[in-house]
Parts: sequence; C-alpha cells; structure tokens
Amino acid sequence: MSHNTFGHLFRVTTWGESHGIALGCVVDGCPPGISFTEAEIQAYLDKRKPGQSKYTTQRREPDQVKVFSGVMLQDDGVTMISTGTPISMMIENTDQRSKDYGDIARQYRPGHADYTYDVKYGIRDYRGGGRSSARETAARVAAGAIARKVVPGLVVRGALVAMGIHSIDRARWDWAEVDNNPFFTPDAGSVETFAAYLDGIRKAGSSIGAVIEVVAENVPAGLGAPVYAKLDQDIASYLMSINAVKGVEIGDGFESARLSGEENADEMRMGNDGKPIFLSNHAGGILGGISSGAPVVARFAVKPTSSILTPRRSIDADGQQVDVMTKGRHDPCVGIRAVPIGEAMVACAIADHYLRHRGQTGRI
Amino acid sequence: MSHNTFGHLFRVTTWGESHGIALGCVVDGCPPGISFTEAEIQAYLDKRKPGQSKYTTQRREPDQVKVFSGVMLQDDGVTMISTGTPISMMIENTDQRSKDYGDIARQYRPGHADYTYDVKYGIRDYRGGGRSSARETAARVAAGAIARKVVPGLVVRGALVAMGIHSIDRARWDWAEVDNNPFFTPDAGSVETFAAYLDGIRKAGSSIGAVIEVVAENVPAGLGAPVYAKLDQDIASYLMSINAVKGVEIGDGFESARLSGEENADEMRMGNDGKPIFLSNHAGGILGGISSGAPVVARFAVKPTSSILTPRRSIDADGQQVDVMTKGRHDPCVGIRAVPIGEAMVACAIADHYLRHRGQTGRI
Amino acid sequence: MSHNTFGHLFRVTTWGESHGIALGCVVDGCPPGISFTEAEIQAYLDKRKPGQSKYTTQRREPDQVKVFSGVMLQDDGVTMISTGTPISMMIENTDQRSKDYGDIARQYRPGHADYTYDVKYGIRDYRGGGRSSARETAARVAAGAIARKVVPGLVVRGALVAMGIHSIDRARWDWAEVDNNPFFTPDAGSVETFAAYLDGIRKAGSSIGAVIEVVAENVPAGLGAPVYAKLDQDIASYLMSINAVKGVEIGDGFESARLSGEENADEMRMGNDGKPIFLSNHAGGILGGISSGAPVVARFAVKPTSSILTPRRSIDADGQQVDVMTKGRHDPCVGIRAVPIGEAMVACAIADHYLRHRGQTGRI
Amino acid sequence: MSHNTFGHLFRVTTWGESHGIALGCVVDGCPPGISFTEAEIQAYLDKRKPGQSKYTTQRREPDQVKVFSGVMLQDDGVTMISTGTPISMMIENTDQRSKDYGDIARQYRPGHADYTYDVKYGIRDYRGGGRSSARETAARVAAGAIARKVVPGLVVRGALVAMGIHSIDRARWDWAEVDNNPFFTPDAGSVETFAAYLDGIRKAGSSIGAVIEVVAENVPAGLGAPVYAKLDQDIASYLMSINAVKGVEIGDGFESARLSGEENADEMRMGNDGKPIFLSNHAGGILGGISSGAPVVARFAVKPTSSILTPRRSIDADGQQVDVMTKGRHDPCVGIRAVPIGEAMVACAIADHYLRHRGQTGRI
Repeated sequence: MSHNTFGHLFRVTTWGESHGIALGCVVDGCPPGISFTEAEIQAYLDKRKPGQSKYTTQRREPDQVKVFSGVMLQDDGVTMISTGTPISMMIENTDQRSKDYGDIARQYRPGHADYTYDVKYGIRDYRGGGRSSARETAARVAAGAIARKVVPGLVVRGALVAMGIHSIDRARWDWAEVDNNPFFTPDAGSVETFAAYLDGIRKAGSSIGAVIEVVAENVPAGLGAPVYAKLDQDIASYLMSINAVKGVEIGDGFESARLSGEENADEMRMGNDGKPIFLSNHAGGILGGISSGAPVVARFAVKPTSSILTPRRSIDADGQQVDVMTKGRHDPCVGIRAVPIGEAMVACAIADHYLRHRGQTGRI
Repeated sequence: MSHNTFGHLFRVTTWGESHGIALGCVVDGCPPGISFTEAEIQAYLDKRKPGQSKYTTQRREPDQVKVFSGVMLQDDGVTMISTGTPISMMIENTDQRSKDYGDIARQYRPGHADYTYDVKYGIRDYRGGGRSSARETAARVAAGAIARKVVPGLVVRGALVAMGIHSIDRARWDWAEVDNNPFFTPDAGSVETFAAYLDGIRKAGSSIGAVIEVVAENVPAGLGAPVYAKLDQDIASYLMSINAVKGVEIGDGFESARLSGEENADEMRMGNDGKPIFLSNHAGGILGGISSGAPVVARFAVKPTSSILTPRRSIDADGQQVDVMTKGRHDPCVGIRAVPIGEAMVACAIADHYLRHRGQTGRI
Repeated sequence: MSHNTFGHLFRVTTWGESHGIALGCVVDGCPPGISFTEAEIQAYLDKRKPGQSKYTTQRREPDQVKVFSGVMLQDDGVTMISTGTPISMMIENTDQRSKDYGDIARQYRPGHADYTYDVKYGIRDYRGGGRSSARETAARVAAGAIARKVVPGLVVRGALVAMGIHSIDRARWDWAEVDNNPFFTPDAGSVETFAAYLDGIRKAGSSIGAVIEVVAENVPAGLGAPVYAKLDQDIASYLMSINAVKGVEIGDGFESARLSGEENADEMRMGNDGKPIFLSNHAGGILGGISSGAPVVARFAVKPTSSILTPRRSIDADGQQVDVMTKGRHDPCVGIRAVPIGEAMVACAIADHYLRHRGQTGRI
Repeated sequence: MSHNTFGHLFRVTTWGESHGIALGCVVDGCPPGISFTEAEIQAYLDKRKPGQSKYTTQRREPDQVKVFSGVMLQDDGVTMISTGTPISMMIENTDQRSKDYGDIARQYRPGHADYTYDVKYGIRDYRGGGRSSARETAARVAAGAIARKVVPGLVVRGALVAMGIHSIDRARWDWAEVDNNPFFTPDAGSVETFAAYLDGIRKAGSSIGAVIEVVAENVPAGLGAPVYAKLDQDIASYLMSINAVKGVEIGDGFESARLSGEENADEMRMGNDGKPIFLSNHAGGILGGISSGAPVVARFAVKPTSSILTPRRSIDADGQQVDVMTKGRHDPCVGIRAVPIGEAMVACAIADHYLRHRGQTGRI
C-alpha cells in the first residue's frame, strides 16, 4: 500500500486537494463486464455532498462525477461497462471561495494536521486543509460505488449510531429510516434529540463527535486470510484512513473484552441451504480474519472537528505563540457525512478480498 | 500487503503453523548497521512465551530464536550487525503434544476459524489451529525486537488496562510495575483483583477478554501521511491483525466521539527545544495521519478465547449438528500475552514509516 | 506492482484509452519541494507527439498536459512546487477521428493485442487499440519529466541506434545531433540512410523495427539491491512495459555472452574525487544490481508495428477466417517515438530507487 | 515488489547468504490443494547444484531442501498438499570452506558487486559474495518447482543456446538431449564443441558468457495485462534479477528490430479446438503483454563471471590501487547452471499471472 493507494487487486488511487482545480481517483483492477451509470455513482456522492442540511457545512459543491476511462459507453448513452482497464473519475472543485488565508497560512490550528504536515513536508497547501481535507473522501465514495458492483448481491449500508453523549436505541433500528433524516440515524425516535443537540452545538460555534456503524450483507464466506490479510484488518485500516476517525471495531469490538468465552462464541446450527446459521453475531461476520457468511459489522468513532469558533492556544510557523479561531464554513458534526464514506471503504475492502480470494483459491 | 507480509520498506513475512516443525519470519529492508544480539530478541520472546504463570497456557515452548541470515557476527560472538539483507529468524516447535485429533479435525469450534478456514481453502491443518494459532505471533515479536532498533531512541511499551469487567486505575500507572506481575498491569493495586478474577475464570474452564494499551515515545514528528499511509491507519491494521483483536483505538479513541471540539483539540505552546509542547494528548500523538512528536498511544480489545470447557452448539464438516467442548491447554485470558505482541506490531509500524518518510522526504 | 502502476516509492499510475476523452497519470510519492513548470513537461511530450514529421503518424494531437494537484503554484504563475502529495496530470484526446470501426471491431489484427485482449477480458475497446494504444505512453513521458528532477544532477538521454538493417556508427555519436533530425539518431551521417530507408517502407505501407539506447548520467552509486530490487531488473521491467518492445539489454547486453571474464570486467582506478574511475563500462553502470556511479546504459528493441497495408491472414471474434489490412494513420517506425518514452521510464526507475535507497539506508 | 520478494499473488521471498548457516525462501499465496514431494523439488535443485561435472564449480553442496510449513503431509509420508499458507523451505550451507578472506574482504573485485555493495550499505558480508552469491538462486529453483504445479499442464523447459562465440544449430533442437550433457544444450552436435571450448577456458583460469532459452508450453491465453503487468515485462524482470544476466528477449527479441511488419506479425488460422493457430511465433507467445496460447519463448544473456585467475586492476576499501586475482572454486561458464534458474523464474512469473488473471477476471 503506497501513500495514496489502497487495495491489492481492486486498487484505488486518489488525488487532489480541497482548493485545487479538481480531485479524483483511478480505480484499477475492476473486473471487466461490470455495468453502471454515472447517475448511480452520483447518488452516493450526493449523500456525502455538503450543504444538504443546516447540519453540514454550507460550502456548495455539486460534486459532479465524470468517468474518463475504463468503460465502454453503451448505446443507451448512459450505461457503462467496465473493460478491466483503469477507471479514472474526476470531480471539479467549484466553490473555492477566494479569501485571505494570511494568518491561517502560518498558524497551526490545534487538532488539525497543520503542524504535522509542515514538519513532514516543509511545504503545505494551507487552503482548506489541502490534501488533508475531507473533500478527498468524495473520490472514495465514487470508487465505492463501483466496488459495490464487484461482489454479486453485496449490500453495504451505514448509519450513525451515536452523536456526542446521545446514542440511538438499537431496538428501533430501521434501515428505511436512515435516508429520512439529516443524521443518517436508523432510529426515528432519535431524530429530535440529535436535532436539538446539534443545533445547540452549531449555534455555539462548537463541534461534536459521532459513531458510525456499517453493515455488509451477502458477503461470501471465505474472504480474508488467517494472518496479515485478515478481512477485519483491512476494514480497520480502510476506516481508520478516513479523516478524523480515532477508533474502529468489528462485531462486539471493545465490548468483547468484557465478555466470557461462553458469551462471545457464536454458536452454529445447520441451515436448510447447506450453509451454517450463526445463532448470534458477536464476531461481526469474521472469524480468524475470514468472513463467515454472517453480516460483516464494523463501527468507527469520528472525533469532533477542531474547526471551532472558540479561540485556542497554539503556535505558528515562526514558533510564536498565537490564539487560533477557525472561521469559515464547517460541519458541526463531521461524523454525519462519514456514513457514505464508511460504506464506500467497507465495500472497497470486500471487493478487493473477493478478487484476492478468487485469485488464490479459485473457489468463487 | 500480501497475505503473510506486512510493511512497505521495513517488511516482515512470517510463516509456520502451531504444530509444524518450526515457525519464523524474514525481516526485509532493515537498514544496515543495526546492532543487536539474539539474547535481546529472546528477552521479548520470553515475555510472550507460554507457561510463565498459571494464568497462561501450560504448553511448554522454549521459543528459542535463531538468526540465520542478514547479519555479520562480531568478534565477541554475540553481537550481530545487520547488513541490509533479509534477516531470517526461526523458532522451533518442541511441545507439539501428540494426540488424537479425531473429532476436532472435523468439528467447527464456535468462535474459532475452523469453519471459515475450511470454506476458504478446502483443506485445513487442524492441529492446534494451524496458521491461525497464536504461536504465529512469536515471529512478530522477534521482528519487533529489531524494529525497535531502527528508530533512534524509540521506546515502545505496553500494558494491560482492563480484563473483563475490571479496569486499572490510571492514576496509579507505573511502567516499572508492568513486569512485576503476571498480568502486565501497570497498576499494582489491580493485581490482586485480576488474580482472583482470573483464578475463578480459569477454574470454571472459561475465558475472558482484555484491553491492552501501547505507548510509543520518541517517535519523530512527521511520520505517516495525510491519506492512505496514515500512521494511525497502519497501527490499526497491524494491531487488528493480531489474533482475537476486535477493536483498535488511537488516543481518546471511541471516547472522542463524545467530546466537543474544544475538549478534543490539543492546544500547543512553544517548547524550549524549538519543538511544540502539546498541552494534552487526546490525539494520541497523531494529527491528520502524521506523528506530532507527542507519545503515540494505541489501545486494542482482545476477545476471550473460544477454547472453553462448556459445550457449545456447532456443526461439523459433514454438516452434522454437534456439541463442541475444547479440552487441552489454553490461556484463560489471551489478552495478557498480547502485550508484547502489541508492542512489537506498533514498533514495526513506526519503523516502516520512519524509513518511508526518510525515503520520500529525506527530512530525517 | 499492480496492473497499471509502476514504482515503489516514486509511483506512477496511468489511465486512459486512445479514443476516450482523455488520458493521464497520478505521480505519487514525489518528494516535496521539487520545482517545475508545465512547459518543461510539455517539452518532453512534444518530442513524443505524433505528426512531427512525415515519418510518424499523421494523427494530430496537441498532447497538452495539465497539472491538477500536488503542487503549489508560485507567484510567477508558472512555477509549480511539489507538495509531496499526488500529482495528477491529464492530456485530452482531441483528434479521435470518428469512423466506422465495423470490421476492426471484430477482426483480430495479426501481431496486435486484439485477440489476447478479447480472451482476457471478454470485452474490448477496439477504437484505436484502447488501452493497448501507444497513446498511453504520453502519460509516462509526463511522469518522467518529474522523475528527472528527483535525483539531483541526473541527466537521462536517449537515441535511436538502429532501424531495421541499418545501424549508426557509434564513433560519430553526438548527443547534440539527436534533436536535429526526425529519427533521434546521434549520428549525423546516418540521417540520410534512415530517411531513404524509411521513405521506402512508408510508401510501401510497411513498417520496420528499431533499437533505442538510453544513457543516464550522474546516477549516484548505491542505487538498487543485490537481489529482487536490482536497478537493472527494474529498468528492464520498465522498458519492456513499453508497447512493442521485445528485448532489453544493460551495458554490453547480449554481446557480453560472447566475452571472456578478462574482457568483460571493468577495471577500476582511484579518481581524484575519492570515487573510483571505471576504465571501461561493459557493465552499463550496474554491478550486482547496484549502480556503480558510471553511466547507466540500457538498450531496447522495438518491433515493427503490425498496422500495415498488406493483407494478412487472421480470424475474427466469430472464429471466421479473414484477411486483415490495417488502414489508417500509423507510424512506419514506432521505434522513433519510443526514444523519449524510454528516457522517461529509465528516469522513473532511477528516481524510485533513489528514494528507496535513501529510505532503507539514509546514505544519500 | 520489495527488495527480496517477487510476485504479486504467487509471492516468493528469499533469504540467506553464501556462507551463512542456510538459505531459503517463503512461498506465499500458493493455492491450496497443490500436491508435491520434497523429491520433486530436489530434482530441480540437483540440476542447479554445483559439482555435477568438471565444468561447474567444485564446491560440494548437497543442496538438500526441507519444507517447514504450509503443507499437510499425507499418510504415504512423502506427499505434501499445500494448505494455502506460506511454504517455508530451507537449504543448509555445508561446504563453507573456512579460509583467510583477508585481502578479499577489503579489495573490490572488478566486475563484482563488491564496490557497489560497500557504497550502498557501508557493510558487506564478503564471504563468498554474501547475498550477491549465486547460491541464492537455489531458493528460486525450489520456489519454481512449486510454481510449475500451479498452472495445470504447464511445461517449462530451458536450454543453453550459445556459449561464447559458439551457438547451437536450432535445426537439431531436441529437448530430450538437454539432460544428456553437462551443458544443457539441446543440440547433440554442439556438445563436443562446447566441451573443447570450455576446457580451454577453464584451464586458462578464464570464464565465458552464455545465452539461455526458456520455453513455456500450455500457458493459457489471457495472462498478463496491456500496460504495467505485461507478462513479458514480468518475465524480463524476473530473468534480469538472476545474477550476471545482462539482456533479456521475448520471441524474436532484438532480431525483431530488423524485421518488417509483414515478416513479424504472426498470422492466425482457426484451429479445430476452437482456439486460433498461430502460423509463426515471432511474438514468443505474448501479444500486447498478454499470452496468446502459443509457447512463451524467452532468452537471456549471462555474462562471464569476473572470478578469474588473471590479475586485474582495481582499488580497495581504503582507496588504494591493487591488482586482484580471484582464487577459489568458480564456474568457468556460470550460464550453464542458469538453465534451471531461468526455468524457475519463468514458471514463477506465469504462476503469479495465472492467479492474478483469475482474481481480476474469474475467466479461468
């Protein structure tokens, strides 16, 4: 894995900064014969797009994706069939508000990558966070839209399950609810609570963290490997690569540290289709690094953005002590828009392992 | 990353099963001129070794490491200097108790990789878990011993911070205590609690999970990258690749989802040495995927082993319903021995990023 | 190395087909602080560009490169400084002559990738060769322009040394002559011969092969490795990846098979600068896979294009026997335009090894 | 590809020096269910083994291979079935004649990697060439023995086709002859010539180069890719990674630079089995980087070893001018023993591409 590529056989390379001309990705290794439309990709991008509600940044970006290569356009003018060669996709940056970056260019915002970036490279595109901007994740979402098509029947869905001190009631989980509210919560009963809570945070110029859960269904058993190509390992890696993510769990995750062996082990019975039925899913669909056929369940924690109106103590590139306040357009809870991103990353991990498993074993 | 290799410039490939002749690793990309002894490597292996107390499996393995290549033995007969070529290390399996695996060979133990392994490969070395055995981690610990030497001044230490329902009191954290007790807890006050708790579990033929924390100090600022070579991403990947790990956190981890932007962002002041001082370390030493110079802090959750005496419902390779009970020698809390393994994996991740950063930027 | 990426630390991913909207590349791993202009890149692209003389295809492509990311544009409006993040470059296809591909779409041209492509993917972009088109090499040339800047002082130059049955007189080698003629020959005395020869071939609707030599000067000693990261190995791989290349040599190449050990070994004396002087360069600047400081010399053979006017026997996608004649615009000697491509690939290989060597050893 | 690993899905990592305890390899990614015996591997190693005739070095090494992992030994006690996990193999060094390396340790032998090695690493295992020794290739031959089994029906055979100024008569090519003579020539009529020629060279303490040809039959059509995973590219890379190789050709190779398009393009007719018949094989079985189903043909040039009795001018590690003469046991024509090595590398390249093709396309 290089610095801007992920995946082994289904490989995604992304490029672009927040305030450059454009950003994009190259999806390499996509099997030939996969059918999709730009509109299908766009639907996922629209979920991630800023400015959809008052709870996300007011930056206005159409995030219109264009497919440049790797497909044969069919006679209907919209259907594309992958040819097995690299699929290059681009999204133009349009709302790069011109402004004076004077101070920001040299100040290190606490909690941001400004200082570490400067130490690493000695040069930094300070406009909108440059490469560290969450805008980069649009490219992942585009790649994920294709990844979903690689594994037959695969369904990958995400939801916000906690925001700050409030969590959803899992007993009320309803996937259909997720797209009905601006928080991607699956619990209709939580919408009002989240709305009031986030309104307060937004008005205070503050921000808050969140927890996202992604569930992948119809993942064939057998994906992954016992050691360094564990499916959960790569899902953890992919999710942790999303901006602001500080924790990742599979199945019961940290809760499993509190369980006994009797509680934790998922018992099995024989199903009518010749495949085992797991009587519980503490493992999150992965045993010994290999998918079991049960739904793959992952969760990740998103920290609050450090772009807040309250001045914070810091230093600048000259070593001077400064107080930093981040004006501008920001998400009070960046975790919300992380839902489609998390879905995309899990889909990419599964697609890659599907091809790797087929390559080594030929058993799919 | 392939199926049995991790790392990019500091690359480790491991091989071997629980009940084969031996297991080992090849450390490729080690810089030339690194000095070490087999005894230094052995010291880390001894920490991981089974049979050190009644709280770990009674399998007796000397886990004696031999270095086969990649070094020049100095005139003192013990000091080895790396030559920059692959360092091959081997550990023989000696205590492979011969027994009748009859049932186990075809039964799928709940919570184990038995079923997924069979689905994936269609053939499985059922003796002691084969490649899925935690014995494989001895090779990682050996590699980690060398990784620690790659980054000047690097100190990587781990500790058990929770076992089942009991957690340590962080106010009593004392690194010196870690090696004084069989649990690797840094809190002397927790030893008795853990001992009584685990005794009960052990006698009941049950098992329990744990949480381990690893702290790396003297990590130079600048390691990692903003996107898919995030230092935290690779640490998460490496830790999640350890057997039985179900969750990984960096810094405040999941707790950061509950914080506000004001609480979470680590403020900075200028230090006397020209480097910034972070007034807190919620970020766990990593900002935007790049090390900040603050201590790198990671935690991981280890599930309880599914090798327990209570019979559990399952199926066998013929699709028959069976009850499975796992006799034999097992750790009641596999998390304990995960401490030196977690240290090794964090050390390897940092060593790899140190070389990658030097390669791309020349700024070290 | 994946299917469309080359390099380890200096990584290039290319995308795009002959007749799509555009083609391009993403250069990942470029060190920060490298200064260049689009005009500098363009100069190399112009060397490769078709339609420069009657000896190359009459397709008219401006091959105008645009840099989309990974740089900070300086106040002069032209100088770009790399930031260490991915440099995305794009070249639009403009002269995609609309035509009826009817027959070509299903016929397998002998000597072309048509049949193998169809067997591999089951779907093929037949327009202009799709991904197999030599247009893809424009992206390599753009990447190579940046690679040249990565190694201080590096000079990489190429020349055509043979075309069909005619070879240059090496005694008349003059680098200054290379850009004075349409063949990139360094031997002014060969220009007339080549011109008359190729005129005849072109008028006959035929084609001919060529041999190209690339010389890299100021390559620091120490790049490469003794085994599977040999500098010559990667140069061979990179050159063989160019369309129509069927052979690669380092130094004396195949001629060295005819030499005795006494003739072949390059003797050394001590230079005034503390570095050795090699009294000959049979080795082509690489000993045991590692650069010696002497000029790196590589040669590659380019076969004649199979796009010729003489009908040849073949089959089509339905298994019918057909006679195929390739009309359209083609190079009578594709080897000519391979000169800047070969330079680019050698530059990329050296840049990658420069960073890898620095990464592992810190000795640069 | 790292410094000591080759392959993508069928990955081989080798380790070990000429005069260490042992050398070996780890074969990762081998499909499960492949059946083989140590004796089968040994047969290939015996072909490469030194001391088989007076024409190879008199070092006596049994080169006995041991398989340590990744297999289930069957009840017959000899058959091993791969489990899909890493196959670790080891070969002990037994004939490491103890001697005084005094001068050699600091002198740079012309044509050897001594100087470049020291420049690169600053430390060097001078005993027998260390990692640069051709002994490393034993590990490749072992890996190749398994690679041959990965692709059903694959046959990979090599032969020496030229030694110094003498070439074989291809009209007399007989594969059965290859194992009848100490030169691996397929031309019985050439044996006497080669014998007399090499006797003279050996007695003079000199050495000579050679050309080896490797032919792979039953390679399925569709392996490789149009751009940077060309099958010929990887074969070139793998062959160039063998010690002393200075040139690689596919099919007609450099000769194709002299051909016209009409001569070079292999015409096709439809075969009775529904697959095309190629009426010639100038392309060496690879079109546009993808196998066509015709035999894959590769050739490589091996330079003469620089270990000769005639003193040559050089320098030492202190910068002093010295005359170097290489005493000891050496091959007068290292090209001979390169035959089984070349076969192994071609087999590994094809096995890797077989798995990669199956992974991406599922079309095998």
